[in-house]
Formats: sequence, structure tokens, C-alpha cells
Amino acid sequence: MDSTYRNILKWGDKREEKIAPRMIQLIREKFGYNDDTLKHRHLPGLEQVKLEKKPALEPRQLDFIRSVVGDDDILTDDCSRARFSCGKFYGELLDLRLGRVASPPDAVVSPGSHDEVEHIIRFCSSEHIPVIPVGGQSSVTGALQAPEGGIALDLAKHLNRVLSISTVNKTVTVEAGISGPSLEAELNRRGYTCGHFPQSFEYSTAGGWIAARGAGQASTGYGKIEDMVVALRVVTPAGVIETKDYPRTAQGWDLFRLFMGSEGTLGVITEATLRIHNHNPLDTASAAFIFRSFEQAVETMRKVMQSEYGKPHLFRISDPEETDIAFKTGGSDNSFSDKLLRRLGFLPGERCLMFVTVEGEKDYNLFVLKKIRHTARKGRGMYIGTGPVKKWLDQRYSSAYIRDPLMDLGIMTDTLETAVTWESLMKVWSSARAYVKKRPKTVFMVHISHVYENGANLYFTFLSPMEKGNEQDDFATFHSGLVDTILKNGGSLSHHHGVGRVLAPWMEGHLGESSMRALKAIKRHFDPGNIMNPGGTLGLTQEKNEIIR
Amino acid sequence: MDSTYRNILKWGDKREEKIAPRMIQLIREKFGYNDDTLKHRHLPGLEQVKLEKKPALEPRQLDFIRSVVGDDDILTDDCSRARFSCGKFYGELLDLRLGRVASPPDAVVSPGSHDEVEHIIRFCSSEHIPVIPVGGQSSVTGALQAPEGGIALDLAKHLNRVLSISTVNKTVTVEAGISGPSLEAELNRRGYTCGHFPQSFEYSTAGGWIAARGAGQASTGYGKIEDMVVALRVVTPAGVIETKDYPRTAQGWDLFRLFMGSEGTLGVITEATLRIHNHNPLDTASAAFIFRSFEQAVETMRKVMQSEYGKPHLFRISDPEETDIAFKTGGSDNSFSDKLLRRLGFLPGERCLMFVTVEGEKDYNLFVLKKIRHTARKGRGMYIGTGPVKKWLDQRYSSAYIRDPLMDLGIMTDTLETAVTWESLMKVWSSARAYVKKRPKTVFMVHISHVYENGANLYFTFLSPMEKGNEQDDFATFHSGLVDTILKNGGSLSHHHGVGRVLAPWMEGHLGESSMRALKAIKRHFDPGNIMNPGGTLGLTQEKNEIIR
Repeated sequence: MDSTYRNILKWGDKREEKIAPRMIQLIREKFGYNDDTLKHRHLPGLEQVKLEKKPALEPRQLDFIRSVVGDDDILTDDCSRARFSCGKFYGELLDLRLGRVASPPDAVVSPGSHDEVEHIIRFCSSEHIPVIPVGGQSSVTGALQAPEGGIALDLAKHLNRVLSISTVNKTVTVEAGISGPSLEAELNRRGYTCGHFPQSFEYSTAGGWIAARGAGQASTGYGKIEDMVVALRVVTPAGVIETKDYPRTAQGWDLFRLFMGSEGTLGVITEATLRIHNHNPLDTASAAFIFRSFEQAVETMRKVMQSEYGKPHLFRISDPEETDIAFKTGGSDNSFSDKLLRRLGFLPGERCLMFVTVEGEKDYNLFVLKKIRHTARKGRGMYIGTGPVKKWLDQRYSSAYIRDPLMDLGIMTDTLETAVTWESLMKVWSSARAYVKKRPKTVFMVHISHVYENGANLYFTFLSPMEKGNEQDDFATFHSGLVDTILKNGGSLSHHHGVGRVLAPWMEGHLGESSMRALKAIKRHFDPGNIMNPGGTLGLTQEKNEIIR
Repeated sequence: MDSTYRNILKWGDKREEKIAPRMIQLIREKFGYNDDTLKHRHLPGLEQVKLEKKPALEPRQLDFIRSVVGDDDILTDDCSRARFSCGKFYGELLDLRLGRVASPPDAVVSPGSHDEVEHIIRFCSSEHIPVIPVGGQSSVTGALQAPEGGIALDLAKHLNRVLSISTVNKTVTVEAGISGPSLEAELNRRGYTCGHFPQSFEYSTAGGWIAARGAGQASTGYGKIEDMVVALRVVTPAGVIETKDYPRTAQGWDLFRLFMGSEGTLGVITEATLRIHNHNPLDTASAAFIFRSFEQAVETMRKVMQSEYGKPHLFRISDPEETDIAFKTGGSDNSFSDKLLRRLGFLPGERCLMFVTVEGEKDYNLFVLKKIRHTARKGRGMYIGTGPVKKWLDQRYSSAYIRDPLMDLGIMTDTLETAVTWESLMKVWSSARAYVKKRPKTVFMVHISHVYENGANLYFTFLSPMEKGNEQDDFATFHSGLVDTILKNGGSLSHHHGVGRVLAPWMEGHLGESSMRALKAIKRHFDPGNIMNPGGTLGLTQEKNEIIR
């Protein structure tokens, strides 16, 4: 078996093996790469994994855990510990490339049932062993690091079943470790969908979506994960919290909502009941539009959301730079239709693409889409067919897999995202853009992809050549300045990636001291011994030096 | 000034001065009343208010509070204390009729600003003076009683302004004490509505809606109050919690959600930012339907909610007994159209009314209504025009005002409500019905009025002659048995009235021990001295004997 760092830092997905020729062309143009530099592999991570930290668990402790889960489901070898020491945060991948695993767990444990999770949490509580719940490992916030050691609780290996589907209540109850594709396959087979399609869909789990408060690409229609959850079962050191599947109640405040965004710091989500929807993909109505400016596109998007005629499901705008790159990498740059567009005043560097789908009953979809087309026309947008949406949907998860081959080329690439009100959207967008563009040779693509009546998200992707030999510090400084800029101009700390350890240092300043005290008090109740994902996540406990930022 | 108990227990609304002749006829039929018994006024509460408990606050304490709010805004007379000792819970009104005020506050204090609330909470914390936040006093759960004395914090007198309206974000920021009519007047003037119309609308406040987790009559479209709140400002003994108006975030769990359903036990909500909607009442589309059975009506309602073609805003079904009474009190019983309906198989004792409105853009409303009419037809429902809906809307708040004149006639009348999944709806309905009907001479009306994809509420109204001389015990026993029946068959403790002191004894059994411990831990953090609405509310602290149940 390949036990190199590279084997850990790669998704292992075919799509990451090659960068498309048009993307290569872009790298040549933007970063000045040539045939030589394109051949070189930067920090490929080809060394064998070897951890300095020995597992800190006593044989007695390992024996107990083994007695709960069985021999096959507790691993303590270096490779497994390294594999479970991180998610997909840029800084973590960089560290692996540098042959560093700063915060490995002592063991990887894969429980087979809710009851086994209870046994383990009770044991780890009494023994003060840290527990890091792990789903699909697609976290981009450092939430899976184990700076205090302990066990990585792998929920995906066994706790991955659909427990029941209620076609009467229109809900599904699943084990937390179920992956996106498994869940959808089971639902689709019966004519339903969950409607939750984060970019990490193929590798993430229901429990991870909930713990990190994820959002799917069609969240404008189906809601964010917290709009989908109706009940949870959670094992905490202070007991099991099990809520019922009422659609709404007024019996005190909702406890299950505490675990949405808890990022493993309060307990282990073992089961969730989620809303489901009819699945009729052939009935979906879609449309792409182009606008002459970001302002016009955003204004139209707001009008659509604030009209009361039904809502789109997928709803996206790419800002001018992202639109230009879409034209280039899609091959439409300088095509006949591009020239026509330019003549109509849709100019590179200004124009913006908007994508829409409506995913209800067929006649409803057509009705809503007609209304949206009317609003877009009034907002000076031009309908450009359904082709671009279909093309986008075909590669909807792919851009996640291009990061690692880009890193092979020595290109720093990461994403940040925020929620904004409509009032502050343009300010956050333009100040983030101004900040990033101060760095030479930096591509900055922004889109809006999760939309509400009262505001939206902004999603930032940057690409820039690494500062060789100073990769981590260069990234940390640049990244930190961007976070500062977003917060200072009115954005939230995150819309759907979560906070983890990477954004934790901003929590108190952003939420305020009394809010932070409240979060910590709640943490203390559920986890008095601080065993649940300790060492910095959400800023609830002291951050240790080893943590990668 | 009239300082009788009667003056406190009445709303002071014209609509409660007289019972409509058809309702009188019903009372004759159902309860065997005659001209003599209809003349008698039972426990009219005509005595002068006189409290046994003297105000327990020291002059020094009163002086401090006076220095904060001014002379006019602190009241310690018996009448004011009695008036602020309760909401509109049946047991409280009965107590007033019996000349009893079991749990008055020591003083009524009306702060003029958020800052004054902060001063008061800080002072009351250090002096261990209980504080009961009070809005419109329409609580039906005993949540406003002051079993440990202290001050009733009257938010409605001064903290009742619209602070700002953002037409860009489509939100309104209000002070917590604003009433329904004030808020709507201000919004309507600018073309907006909040969409929140609880039956208590005319006398309740935004802060009360949020603290008790209320629901408006059009909640199926506009959402429950917790779906409307985007940000809160709350003064707690542990500091001020102020959240931002992002549409969604992923920065830990949402703290503002803790205060929705907190019922005054964690702090004082002083400001709220709520979503608003376009207000075009002339565009509203509406329809009434009649079904041959409750089962068919419920099945159709579920189908409508689970189709993906847009949702109604107001959506109601009356069960057969409520439908029969609507026919009788509406004067359609035995009319020509009633005879026609009977011939078509829509029989008294079986048939059910369904009301619908759709309140978006005009063509959207017509589209959705057409779809609903189609679904209703397939579900064997018959469209009976828009008249019944308009008639119902005209008197939408009135039934609240009939309770007190009925109590004058010695008739016990109260409401209970619950949330259910679709799977458990019929079981909760039929078992509640079976329980109530064991009591002789009891009218029991049930409707569904807040509907979701995954379930709905059930709203129960009962009327029955009081057991004279044993009014309180008779009620408590009967009421308690109904709550037990609802919970045992799968209903929630409440869907939108809240828990207060009346339902508190069921909290731990219903939520489970570890959930209850978590609620109490959160309470302890925000209110370590237990000054916020102490003495039983939500079951967070020991219940005192004096509390009226």
C-alpha cells in the first residue's frame, strides 16, 4: 500500500489527475508559467509517512475500546493516524506536502452503532481521552486536527445507513456517517431527494453537514442544512440528547439547534431526521442570463428573492473575474457568440453570468422561471439559454479536485466565504477584491450561490503562486488579511464552511464577549471534561501552538 | 377609576360585551340553559381589588428604580400589581373572579429604553429582585405570575417603536414592546407586512411573540415567529447578547435562537429584527372547500403541503364538530345550501371546512390556488367559494373575546394546542376527542391552522358548564387529563402557546432528563441568581405552591 503523504493529501479521485488544457493556458497567462515550470512538481509529498508522536493511549485503554468496537475497528498505525489528522484545509495539505503531521490522533476508532458511541464517550469521559468526531474529512477549517491527541471517531465506516423513510411525514432518518451519494441513491430510488448538494457532496456525510452547518448548491430552494434537520440524536458526555420530529414546537428553546454548528465540540451526532422532497429532475426548469455589470446582476437577484412568486432552487451569480475565467476555461472566449455579446455591451471585465434552476412540479417550475425571466429582463439581463447551466451542473463537484494538482504546480489556492445582508454585499465584495488585488499575480473569483430574502453569501476563490520556501507563513498572512477585510466590512465569519480552528481566533472579536461566554458555558455543560474536539475549535478552549493555521 | 377584579379580567374590548344570539341558542341546546340561567352572572368579580401581600421591595430599592425610570413609571398600588399578576390563562381569570391574586409582583416598572433595561437588570441582579418581562399580557400559560414577587417589567408602555425599516434587506427592527396593530400600521403605510397575525394580535407584542414562540394565522406561508426573526438584542444578567442580521451563518450554533421560547427566563428581549413582506391584500387569492370527512380533508392538506407548487399562507381545517358549530353560529344550518350539501353527502357530524389564502403576487396566487383546487378536487373536496374565508377573516380575532362573557354564564372554556407529525395526527385528534367527550355536556372544537411539509398543529377548544363551587379543581383535573392524552399519543407539549407555569410540570417527562438538565444549565449561565421570571416557568426552577394551575 502507498503510505506516502501524497496518498493522504489527494482525494484519490480521477478528476484530480489532470488539469484541463484551457486551465493550463490560463496559468501560463496569469502566472507566467512556461513548459519548464509546468513540468516541475512542487512539494509533492512523496516521502513515507512517519509520525514523531507515539500514540499516548495506555494498553488498558486501547483494550477497552477494542472490546467495544472489535479488533478491526481500532487503528493505531502511523498512516491511519496521519490520514485522520486533518481534513482538506489548504494549510493542512501544505503541511502534508512538507512531511509534517502536527496534530495526529492516538487512534482511529470506527464504532458500529449508537450504543457503541455511548460506551466510548462514557469511557473517554472518565479517562479524559479527547474524541474528534469525523465524517467525510472534507472540512476546510482545521476542525479535525487532534492537537491534544485522543481518538478520531470515524463515523463513516459503519454508521452510514438509512434507518427509515417516512413517505407520510416526508422525512428520512439516517445514521450520521452516511455519505451524500449513498443517501441520494437510496432516496432517488424511491422518488425523493434530500436537496443537499454541497461541493463536497461526494465525500461528505450528513453528520458533517450538520455539525459544520453546510449548504448545498440548491440551498436557495431547499434550504441550508439547518433548515432540513427536524430531529437529532446526539451522544454528549452529559448524556444523550434525543429530540422529536415535530415540525415546530413552543416547549422552550430548541436544543437540537445547539448541535448545528457545534463542530464536534459538544457531542457526537449519531442520527438525524431530515426533510425530503419529490425528485423529478426531468421537470427541472433552468436558465442562464448575462448582465452588463455585477451591480445589475445582484440587484436582479435581490428583486427575484424579494418578489413573492416562488423561489429558485439553484441561484448563482459569478462576478466579472469569475465570469471571464468561465468564458476562457469554457472555450467561449472570442467565439462568435462572445463577439456578439461584446457588441451588445456585455464586456469582459464587467459582465456577469447568472444561473437559475427551479425544481418543483413541472408547471410550477415553468411559471416561476417565466417570472424570473421577466425580472431579469427588467434588470437588463439577457437570457442565454439553458446550456451553460447544464454544463455547470455536469461538473458541479469538479472544481474541488483541481486544487491539489494546482498545488503540485506551486499555486496557492483556497476559498473563503461569508454571509452578508443585501445592504453590505457590494461593500464586502469590493473591499475583498481590493485587498486581494494588492497581491501581484493573483486570480480572484467571486460568486454568490446561496440566496435569501434578506441577503446572500459571497464565495471567494483565490489562486496565486506560492512564495517558495515560505508557503505557510505567506498563506497565513494573506488569508488572515482577507478574513479581517471581510469582517471589517460587514460580512459574517462563515456562511457554510464553519469555523474550526482556522477561523477560531476571530470568534470572540466578531461575536462579542458575552456571546462567547455563553457558547463556552454551553460547552462546559455538555462536555465538562473538555474531551470533545478540544484544542481550539470554535475558540471555545485554548488554542495550542501545534495547530496549523 | 373602576378598581374591581372584573376590570382586570376583561380585555376591555367592545366585542366581549355581548354574546351573539346564535351562540346563545347553542348554549341553550348544548348545556340546557334557559332564560333564568342565562340572566345569572357567575363569579362576576365585582369586589374591589385588595392585596394581602404588601410590596416587599425596600424604599432604597424603589428609590433606585425610580431614579432610572422616573416617578411615573414605577407603580406599587394594589390595582396595578394585580393587573400585572397574570395574563389570560383561564385559571388566572377564574382566580380573579374568586377575588384572589395569588402571585402579584411588588411593583410595575416601565423602562423607557434598552439602556434603562440594562440598569434595572444589573441592579436587580445585585439585589436578587425577581424580574418578569411583560408584553401584551395575552399569555395563556401562567407565564406572567410573580410567585416570588419582584418587578413586572412592562415593555409595552414605552419600548414600542419601529426603530428602522430596511427596504433593501426587507427587514424591520423594532423595540420588543411594540403591539401587532402598531407594527402593521407602520409597515402597511410603506407597502409591507410582517405576516404575523396570532389570535392575540390586537393585544400582544413582538417581544411576547418571540419569547413564547407564537404563530400567526397565516404562518403556513409566512412562517412561525422563529422563522421571522433574523436578529435579537437581549439583556441578560450575564450581559447583553446582540446578534447580527445575517440571513444565515456557520459561526457556531445560533445564540439568538435560545431566546425564542425562553419565556422571560433568560433575559429581556429589548429589540428584534424581523423579516417583512410585500403587502398587497387586494391580490390575495382565497378559497373555501368542504370535505365529507376529517380524514379526507387532512389527507388533502398533507398533499397540498407535500406537492412542490408553492404553499398557501392561511391554511385551516375545522373538524366535524367545529364545522357543525360554524354552520350553526354562521346561520347556514338548515339553509338551502346546507340542504344541498347534505344531499351531496356532506353530512353534519362528518363534514369539514377548509380555508385557504395565497398572499404573494397576483398571478402567483392564482396559479397556486388553481393547483390547490385541483388537489382538493382529487381529494373529493368541494369548492364552496371565497365567502366563508372572507367572513372568517372579518372576525379572525373575535373568538378570544367571547371567553369572558361565557365565563360570566358559568361556562368553562379554554384552549390547548399541540404539534404533530402527519403520522400521529389522527391518533392525537381521536384520542383527545375521546377523552373530552367522556365529560358530559362538553363542546369540543378542533382545527388545524399551522401547517408544514412534515406535520401540523392541532388546536383544541372546549366549552362545558363549570362545576359550581369547585371551579378550579374541576378545571385543573380536566385540563391535566387532556394534556396527558395529547402527550401519550404523540403530540408536543405546545406548538405556539408556550409552556409557562401551567405546562411546566410536564416538561421533564416530555423532553427527557438530559434535555432538561441542558435547559437548566443554560438558564444558570444567563441568570445565575435566578431572578428572570423565577418560580416555575418552563420547569427550570422549583414551582411554588402559590402558583395557580
